[in-house]
Formats: sequence, C-alpha cells, structure tokens
Amino acid sequence: MNPADRERAGVAPPLERESALPASRAGGGLSAALNPRSIAVIGASDNPNKIGGRPLLYLAQFGFRGAVYPINPNRLEVQGRRCYPDVAALPEAPDLVIVAAPTTHVVQAVDDCAARGAKAAIVMASGFGEMSDASAVEAERGMVVRARAAGMRIVGPNSQGLANFGTGAVASFSTMFIEVEPADGPVGIISQSGMMSVAPYGLLRRRGIGVRHAHATGNDADVTLSELALAVVEDEAVRLLLLYIESIQDAPMLARVAAAARERDVPIVAVKTGRTASGQAAARSHTGALANEDRVVDAFFREHGIWRVDDVHELVSASEAYLKGWRPSGRRLVVVSNSGAACVMAADAAPSLGLALEPLAAPTAAALAAQLPNFATVTNPVDVTAALLTNSSLLGGILSVLAETDDADLLLLSLPVAGAGYDVGAFATAAADYARVTGRPIAVASPQESVAAYFGAAGVPVFANQTDAIRVLAQLAHHAQLMRKRPPIRVSPASTTAPPGRGRFLGEAQGMAFLQAHGLPMVAHRLCRTANEARMAFRELGPRVAVKACSPDLPHKSDSGLVVLDIDNEADVVLAFTDLETRMDALGATVDGVIVARMAKGRREMVLGAKVDPVFGPVVMVGDGGRYVEALDDIALLFPPFTVEQVRDALSTLRLRVFLEGRRGDPPMDVEPLCRAAVRLGEVIVGAGRSLASIDLNPVIVGAEGEGVVVVDALVERSSRALADTADSGSSR
Amino acid sequence: MNPADRERAGVAPPLERESALPASRAGGGLSAALNPRSIAVIGASDNPNKIGGRPLLYLAQFGFRGAVYPINPNRLEVQGRRCYPDVAALPEAPDLVIVAAPTTHVVQAVDDCAARGAKAAIVMASGFGEMSDASAVEAERGMVVRARAAGMRIVGPNSQGLANFGTGAVASFSTMFIEVEPADGPVGIISQSGMMSVAPYGLLRRRGIGVRHAHATGNDADVTLSELALAVVEDEAVRLLLLYIESIQDAPMLARVAAAARERDVPIVAVKTGRTASGQAAARSHTGALANEDRVVDAFFREHGIWRVDDVHELVSASEAYLKGWRPSGRRLVVVSNSGAACVMAADAAPSLGLALEPLAAPTAAALAAQLPNFATVTNPVDVTAALLTNSSLLGGILSVLAETDDADLLLLSLPVAGAGYDVGAFATAAADYARVTGRPIAVASPQESVAAYFGAAGVPVFANQTDAIRVLAQLAHHAQLMRKRPPIRVSPASTTAPPGRGRFLGEAQGMAFLQAHGLPMVAHRLCRTANEARMAFRELGPRVAVKACSPDLPHKSDSGLVVLDIDNEADVVLAFTDLETRMDALGATVDGVIVARMAKGRREMVLGAKVDPVFGPVVMVGDGGRYVEALDDIALLFPPFTVEQVRDALSTLRLRVFLEGRRGDPPMDVEPLCRAAVRLGEVIVGAGRSLASIDLNPVIVGAEGEGVVVVDALVERSSRALADTADSGSSR
Repeated sequence: MNPADRERAGVAPPLERESALPASRAGGGLSAALNPRSIAVIGASDNPNKIGGRPLLYLAQFGFRGAVYPINPNRLEVQGRRCYPDVAALPEAPDLVIVAAPTTHVVQAVDDCAARGAKAAIVMASGFGEMSDASAVEAERGMVVRARAAGMRIVGPNSQGLANFGTGAVASFSTMFIEVEPADGPVGIISQSGMMSVAPYGLLRRRGIGVRHAHATGNDADVTLSELALAVVEDEAVRLLLLYIESIQDAPMLARVAAAARERDVPIVAVKTGRTASGQAAARSHTGALANEDRVVDAFFREHGIWRVDDVHELVSASEAYLKGWRPSGRRLVVVSNSGAACVMAADAAPSLGLALEPLAAPTAAALAAQLPNFATVTNPVDVTAALLTNSSLLGGILSVLAETDDADLLLLSLPVAGAGYDVGAFATAAADYARVTGRPIAVASPQESVAAYFGAAGVPVFANQTDAIRVLAQLAHHAQLMRKRPPIRVSPASTTAPPGRGRFLGEAQGMAFLQAHGLPMVAHRLCRTANEARMAFRELGPRVAVKACSPDLPHKSDSGLVVLDIDNEADVVLAFTDLETRMDALGATVDGVIVARMAKGRREMVLGAKVDPVFGPVVMVGDGGRYVEALDDIALLFPPFTVEQVRDALSTLRLRVFLEGRRGDPPMDVEPLCRAAVRLGEVIVGAGRSLASIDLNPVIVGAEGEGVVVVDALVERSSRALADTADSGSSR
Repeated sequence: MNPADRERAGVAPPLERESALPASRAGGGLSAALNPRSIAVIGASDNPNKIGGRPLLYLAQFGFRGAVYPINPNRLEVQGRRCYPDVAALPEAPDLVIVAAPTTHVVQAVDDCAARGAKAAIVMASGFGEMSDASAVEAERGMVVRARAAGMRIVGPNSQGLANFGTGAVASFSTMFIEVEPADGPVGIISQSGMMSVAPYGLLRRRGIGVRHAHATGNDADVTLSELALAVVEDEAVRLLLLYIESIQDAPMLARVAAAARERDVPIVAVKTGRTASGQAAARSHTGALANEDRVVDAFFREHGIWRVDDVHELVSASEAYLKGWRPSGRRLVVVSNSGAACVMAADAAPSLGLALEPLAAPTAAALAAQLPNFATVTNPVDVTAALLTNSSLLGGILSVLAETDDADLLLLSLPVAGAGYDVGAFATAAADYARVTGRPIAVASPQESVAAYFGAAGVPVFANQTDAIRVLAQLAHHAQLMRKRPPIRVSPASTTAPPGRGRFLGEAQGMAFLQAHGLPMVAHRLCRTANEARMAFRELGPRVAVKACSPDLPHKSDSGLVVLDIDNEADVVLAFTDLETRMDALGATVDGVIVARMAKGRREMVLGAKVDPVFGPVVMVGDGGRYVEALDDIALLFPPFTVEQVRDALSTLRLRVFLEGRRGDPPMDVEPLCRAAVRLGEVIVGAGRSLASIDLNPVIVGAEGEGVVVVDALVERSSRALADTADSGSSR
C-alpha cells in the first residue's frame, strides 16, 4: 500500500525503521533468526510438499543440530519428531518460530509466540501489507507493534523463509533446495522476494559455487533486508553479497551494510526493481513495496559501491570472478582468440562497455610475433588463427608473454569453435596458470559445453556467450573502481536557518534573499512595492530587466504568464508593475510585491536543485536547464556534502559537457562557480535540517569562462514537518 | 587493405562488384558452388583433421551423391577414393574445386582449375586480400580477373568453405560438423567469417533446429556474401536467413536479397561488425573488410527490414520463434508468472525494450480473477503466486482465458522456480495449446534445465534468462513491423545540373544559387564585389546582416574567422568587406566576392546534409545543428527519395523532438518546411547523379510554427568523378 492509499484508507504510516528497538536487543533477535539454537514450526505437517512440512524436512536433511519442535494440535508426532499442541506447551521458549499457519491464524499465532518469549518469528503467509485492503495492512502493523513490545522480531509476512547452510538452519519452504543440492560456501543472498532468494542460489550451485545464506524477507514489516544484510556481511565466511530489493525504506542501514562490506572487501551486487512506472506498480502489489525514485537509487548505489544489475543472471554472472578476489586496477582489455570474427565482435563490444582495447606495447607485440605464424595479426585483439589447431602450445606461449607484461588489466580468451583436433586441456591449464601467476582477471568464452567443461574444471570462469564474458570483465573493472572510491567523510555544515513563515513556498524575494545570504550567486534584483520603486530599480539595474510577480501563493509564475522579460524602458516597467499587481490581486494571491531583476546574459541555461528525499535524505541535482529540463533529462545527482571536484565529475557524465568544453571558437563555460554554487546549495539543504523540502534554481545562467554564473529564478519549499511545527506554535506572519 | 593503403601501395582499386559477369553466367557458377554435381579437392589428405582431409570425410559422411575427385600428385588413393595427380588429369571438368593447397600454391592451382573449365573454386588459404602486403592483394586480384575471364567463380580466399546439408555437398573444413551432428532444416547461414558460419549452426543444432546452408565467403574477392545470400534465399526450404557481415561492398545486391526474402516472408537477422573504430580496425585485418559508416548501415538495414544484432547468441536466439511463423501485429506484452519478483522484473524490462505492458481488459481481468486465489493480483503482470504448486490446472485455465481474448500480442510465461510438486508437464501442454490455438507468440523463461526440457519437448521456445525471453518477444514485434513496412517505390527525380567549375567545392554564392534554384529556402543575400555593392546590400537586407568571405578555396570559413555576424550599420559592413577581401588575398585564395546576408532569426539551429556514400549511394541527414553538431550526435539518416512524412518520423526519433514540439509557452517549431527542405535536398543529391559528393547546410534556422526555415550556410562539394571529368574535358573557368 503506497502512502497515498494509506492516507485514503485512514491507515497509519509505516513504522519508523531506525532505533525502533535498542540495537543490542534487535541484534539478539536477528542472531536468533539467523543462527537459532531451537526452532518451532507452527502448522507442522507430515507432507514435505506443504509449507508446514518442508522446513521440517530441510532441518533434518541439512543437519540442523538444535532442538526442533513441530506444533500441531491434531498430531502427536510429525516427520518422526514429537509434536506439541501449541507454543505454550513447548519445553522452552524457542529462539525461532516458523509460522506456517494460514493467513487467518497468523496474528494469533504470532501473538502467542511473543507471549511465550520467542526471540524471532518467520511469518510465511501472504495477505498482509502487500494487499490494497486497509485491514490487512493494519493487522500487519499491529502484529509488529505487539511483537516489538514483547522483544520479538518478525521476518515477513509473505516470506519464504531463511536458510543458513552453515548451521543447517534452513527455515524455508522453497522447492529449490529439493531441486538443487546445497553446499555451504562464500555467498550470501538476501531478497525481499522468495523466488529471488533461491533462483540465484540455483544458478550459483550449477556453477559449483556454495551458498551460506539464502534469505527472503518478504514484506519487511519488521526485520528489513538491510538489517539482515548487515548481520550476514558480518559472517566471516561470506565473501560476496547478492541482494534483490523492491523497496529501500532504511537507506542509512543499507549504507552501513555497504560500509561493512567494503571494510571486508565483500562486493555487493544488487537488483533494485522499480526502474519504470510499470515495475513500481508491479512491486507494490508483490511485497507492498513503496516506490523509490530510481535515479536517486542509482546515485546512492554508486556512492556506496553497490553494483546494480537488472536480472537474476546478471546478479550471479560475475560471482566466480569476484570470489577469485580479482579487483582489477584498470580497464585495458586484451583479447586472444582463434577466430578473427570473435576478435572483431569483441573489439566492437569493448568500448560500449567502457573498456579500452589499447594497442600492445612494442616489446609485447614482438614477443607475441615470435610465437605466431606470419599471417596472424599481432595487434590487440590477438588473432591466433586456425594455427591453434596444429600447434597446441601456441596458446600457452601467448598467455605466458601476456602474464609477463603489463598490457592487460583484463584478459578475454575466446574460443568460439574448438573440439576434435584441439588440445583443449592444454588451453585450460594455460588459462589457469595465467590467472594464478598474475592474479589478474581472465574470462573464457566458449559456446561448446564440452570445451567449456575443461575450463570450468580448471577453475577459470567460462561463459557460453562472449558478450557475457566481456560484460563480466567490465563489471569487475568498474565495480572495483567504485569500491576503491571511498565515500567522503561527511562533515555536517553549519545549520542554516530557514526564514519564518507558514506557507508551503517562500515568496521568491524571500527565497532569493535567503539563498543570497548563504552565498548563492543570485541575479541583481529589487522587490518593489510601488511603481516608483520599480522605476528606480530599472534605473539601477537596466538597460534590460525582467519584471516578475512575487507571491508565496504563485510558485509557478512563468506558467501563469506572471513574468515579463527583456524590458528596456521605464514606461514599460511601470506598465508591467501595474499589470502584475492587478493580476495577483485578481487571483486572490498574497502580494509580496513585484521583482525587478537585471536581465542576465550568459551562454546556457542550466538547473540546480536540492530536495530531501524521504528515504535517502538530501540530494542535489545539477544539469541542463530551462523550460525543457524534464524533457532533456540530462541531470546528475549528488549527495551533500560534496566537493567542487565531485560536481565536475558529475557534469562530465552529462551530454551537455560538450557545451561546457566549448567548440570551434566558442570558449569553455564558467564551470568553477557553477560547481561552487552546487556545493553551497548542498550545504544549505543539509544545514536546514528537515525544515526545507526542496530548492529549485532554474534557470541558472552560466557564462563563458570568467563571466560567472547567475541564478535567475528560485523556488524554495518548506517541508511538511516545518509546516506542522509552524502550525503547532500558532505563529503567523 | 583499405583504400588509402591500396593507394600508397600502388594497388589497383577493388574490382567492380556489379555486372562484372553476365547474370546468367554468374548464377551458373554460384549454383555449381552451392549444388555441384562433382567436386574435386586439390591437396587431398588421408588425415581428416587436415584442411585437405576434412571435406573428403564430410562428403562421404553426409551423403553427397555426386562425383568426388581427390587430387594429390603423391597418392593413388585418398580416403578410399581414387586420387588424381592434377586437375588436368580429371575425367571431367568438375563443377566445384576445393583448393586446400597452401597459400604459395593457390594462384597456380586456381589458374589450373580455370583452364580445366571448372565452374567454381573455393580457396581456403589465407594470406591474400586481408594482408597489408600489396603483392598479396595483387595476387588475389589477378586470380579473380583470370578466373572471371575463364568463366569460373571464386569463393574466398580465406574461406572455411560451403556446406549444403540438403545435398550433402559439405565442402568445408570446419571442426564443427564433427562436434555437432548435422540435420537438414529451414535455416540458411552465410558469413564472411568461417567461425561465424558454424558457431550459430552449433547453437541452433543444440536447440534441435536443422540447418540447410552454412557458408563462409571469406574475403569476398569474387563471390560476395550478398550474391550467395540471394541464391540461398531462393532455396524454398529456407525460412530464416542469418548473416555475419564485416563489410558490405554491394549494397544493391543486399537490397535484392532483402526484397526476395520479404517476398517469401523469410526474416533476415544480421550481425554487422564495425560499430566502433576498434571493431573496424579488427575487421580490416581479419577479412580485409573495408569500413562502412555504421549509422548508414543501421539506416540501410531498417529500410530493408533486416534485423541487426551484435553477437552470435543474439543472432540465433529468436530462431525458433521466427520458424513458428509468428509475426505479431502489436507490442502488447502480457506476463504470467508464479513469482511476484519475476513479474516485477518483467514489468521493469518491457518498456526499455519498446513493449507496452497494458492493463487487461475488464472482462479478461474478471475471467482471470475467477480462476485465481484471492490474494493473487489480477493485473498485468498476472501473478499466479505459489498457488500453482497446489493447483496444477490453474495455468491452463489462465492461458485459455488469454487465448480467447485479445489482450496479448506477446505472452511471457515465467517460471523461475518449479520442479518437485509442480505438474510441469501440464504447464508445457497448456503453453503449446495456447500457441497452437492463437498463432500468437509465447516465450517461456525457466532457469531450471529439468523444467525447461518439458517446454522444449512441447515445441515452446524456452529461455534460461527471462530478459532474453522478453528480448526475443520484442525482436519479433519490432522486426515484424519493419518487415511489414515495405520500402517505398523509388521514383528518380528529374536530374539536376550541377554548376560547372573545376574546384572541389563550389563558392558559397554559387552553391546557394544552385540550391535556391532547386527550391531550397536560402537566406536572403547578395554577392558583392565592391564596397558599394556591400553598402547597397545592407540597405536592402538590414537592419542586421552577416558578412562572409566567398571563395571556393575556403570552404571552412567560420573556422578561419572569415565571417562577421550581426552588423547593424553601413560603416561596419564596409569595414568588414574590405577586411575580408584583404584577408582572402593574403591567403592567396580565389576571390568570388563577399556575401552580405540577412541575419536570420529563429528558434533553433538545425542541420541538413546530403552525401553520396560509396557503397550505399545518396543519403540525407537531418538533425540538431550548429557548432556542436558532431558532439551532439543527434541526427537521423534517410535514403532519398523520401516523403515529408518520413522526415517527420525520422525527427520523432531524435532527442531534439522536445524542442520541435514546444513546451511551457514555447510554441511548436515549423517542422513542415524543414521536412520539405530535406525532401528537396534528397532530390538534388539524387538528381545530380554522381556529380556531387556532398551538400552541407549548417545551420538551418528553424522558426516557430508559421515562421519558416532558412538555410544560412551552404557547402557544396563536387565528386571525384565530376572533378576527373572536368579535368578530362580540359575545361577551365
């Protein structure tokens, strides 16, 4: 249920995510869920294909050593274990209870668990917060409130369960663990969806990779994915973390997960859905996910070194390479193949994936030429030609040369056709040797399963599809770079006092004064209350001015035609003044006055914006501006505080960078003061605490180098919290 | 070897591709190559792992019924067949000779074949046109010239061979046909690379799809890929054509292939490499491929209904779906899954692939709701939830409802986890029934091989990766639309007479007069030869004018500072005139005079361009203009002649469309006259025959609706051919 629906349905907002429980207690509940000493199953069944039967099967099968308590009032024994009629009858308070009861029985069962002193419960039934029905949402909320009061954590509802293959605590009803035999290993998977907690598991196991954790958090009503991820990343066996996220509601917790992972050199790869409106709608009805603004998610992931992907295959495809510990320091790809066409296609693909296919250094090329037949081309890509068929040691020789030189940060070995007549075993050994000697990434592309098997056995990552192999190498390089770039230490700027008032928007003159006081380069202007003041302002600010209505009630004045541009004489200024005043009155708007502002000259209209995202906090936007700002969609986001250098980097990712650089006699633009203004804007929005909702500066007119930057229009919006505070204190203007 | 290298090396240009041989004779040679009655092998070997041994093995193994003649002077028998010392000793002139001799013996062997009256030869050795060595290039050329004179066609050099599984004429040395057992079928593969003639074959065979043709043309020195493709597409057994192209040198022939394929409803899917500079460089050293301009290739493929992909997996991934005959008429995707997360990811992916995930019609939603448990969401995607585990007939019921309604042009069934407890056999039957009843595309996504096998057996296309499944559905929809849009009938416009002269460029005034005479909206201007003429021109054209040097020797006058903009008085006009004349003299340039032009006003600087591509012929470009034209890279291409409506469609694909539409009080721009100018420009470049090389109109200033369009700068370039003709006729100005 989204916030608007909640409001309509009269449902209370979601529970606060942070500090709802003291940390120690919360940690205790989580550790009981992840690593329980005892597990009870409410709704225990003899049938291992039923939700209440599967976990009992798994606990027996995967070697869980703690106590297991089936609960079912109609049985004395279930799957060979003594069965209890209810939670109250258990010999001890269980660490973890699997609530496999139907939806209608869940609330009572959870309340019973809390009363019995259980530390954590997994609620598997759906039919709660993901419904559009207000009573279902309220039932979920009430259950969580009561559990928290009793000190019990809840995973779910709508959870497929938790599975810890380190301890055998597989409290899950997934079919997958029957289909694919588990093996403990270095990967942790945490997902808000049941399917996505196990589909990656299936693909990893097929590649022979073991999985320690495969957890599904469902609706995240109490325990969130981020909380669970923090506990998992602290498991020293875990060396790779895979996440499936439909909604982030506790960004600071996810940032802590990322920091802890970075500390331990554990890469995080995540699917975050809701890229599109249709995806957001689908997520809402799946786990009740609240929509996150997608480009803010992108910026947040980049900032925290989380690699974002779009599907389950992309989620797992680089796992082997990550687990080798490969963290390449550059993006130079060398391609070696027995097929010229594979070379050509690799050369085509590399640049679009941000990889450089640089020529080999002269000594490298010479050393390779000594190995290759004379018709082979010793450039990069290295085409070893069909000569590989007759000379099995050729590949080993080439890889040895490349291992001894510094030409390749990343190596692709592509063998689109091999088999009879080829010594594939020798090739696999050569590839494994290269990886062992250099510690640098190598990926093999081979669509033939029989050929691929040799490389798999030698521990070299191998892909059926060459494009996938190159994509994985690119991911390693880009992700390693993100992981190296530690987030700057955040120094909170001095707090800024937002001007008093009770409307949602500041009048523009008030907003401009506020921003100017905080160092933003506002256009020269005067707020005029009489025609004479307007005339005086023109004399001071001319030869050309803009005249604008100023009222906190009319934030979008351009759209309402309440702005007159480019006036070059007093008479027209007075005319505009009178006209705008009349029109504001006619609209019944509060009249602050009329602004007369100098017409700014410059080279391009850009935009600066800041807002407080409900989940991610303050965010600053910089990009191409003017009337077409949404349509152009050429903006970058930054989390304040940040530096001038970071703004420069962000601008360099935009299409408009070509204008910033200048061309054919157009000088470069004055980027430095633009960056400073962005930094300042970040300080203002952070410093304002939560008293401001947004600041929109559009256009910001940027001149040629040395000509500076001028903010022409400014709209400052107070936050709901500030409005509520003002209302409480009964203040008025 | 590229044209520049050829020139440096003193090598003659490549042979003309078209009408080099009379069509009937060419066809005869091709049919002998594709469907020979007799095959000789020069360099025949007993070892089936050698190039001269493999074809003999294959001809025996795959049931070739014609005569086979091994040739080797050192043997009496090879692989159980009588062996001949040379071609001359053969009992008949063979239809096809496989020249498996080493590079150094190839030229003599080919000449011998021609002398013996062979109809076609396949040259397998490399070391010819793909080398940077001029003598190797010349050897290839000479061989082709002599063969043509004798009426023999050559496939290759650098060819892995041709393989026709309809007749068993497998004249190839590829390892692949040992690795993967052939089966005749409806697919034709033609490739300039050996590997790419068989790698798709391997993938298709793994999916149980038969292949009729798998041909590698190598360097295309004589027989081109397009020629061979035309012959293959006329084989009635062929229902899908897959191409791998490094260089297109005979675009009209490829257009004929596309037309023939469309006539028979045979989809063409093609990899065309050389998207990037590094890819073009790699292709040059692989098959000696000459670079094609990539965006022209894109436009050409779109125009002719060829679907372009980037790798071998994309080349084959939609094959099953094409072969079902599915040609969807719309882009509405319906998703059905037992996983909410799969639904969410599908909903995210669909829009970026150009598919619409529309809500279900009310009756459809109601009919589905009657089948689904109450917690399942009856929207699109349709989440059938884990209820599928307990109710096996659920899926059949849902697919029946969807089969009876018109909500889905495309259907995705995603089962990320199934297996024990699921009646997968029933699901596969239901999916196959849906396809049979509706004739509409369905694709299944299942990463579990055991689950996927059921669908494969039922003849339903199934993909491990859900994104691949959606991509294939999108490809079907978009490609079917392209195939339906038949290319317009080309009516050649009246020929235009390019102005006389002998320089490479027309002086701007001459160029503008030429274009104006052909209906292009040139800015009002005067060519002035005296200061007084300039003064008069200002009086006529003011209040603001631009003054520009006019000389055929100074085509890029803006870059040289030979343009003065925005002059608003006579004195400055005279000053500019004198200054420009002096500077032209100082540069030693021919002085046509000085142009005084009215300063054009408008809303946006756009660009129109036309050029004659050496391969694809006349092309017109329209897009965002001004100084940043290359950096903005926001242009579309059209093949003239075309209509105003086609220009509108092309503009609607550009980012700048938002400016054309207008926003927030900005009126829409005057698109109609811009489109008319583009059409006119196309007529001019076509009508000029090959006398013009290019016309560059930048900027073209476009006003608001009703304000019109004005071409401000024009550069007209003569073709090399026109320059040569002028030189021959000894004319001078």
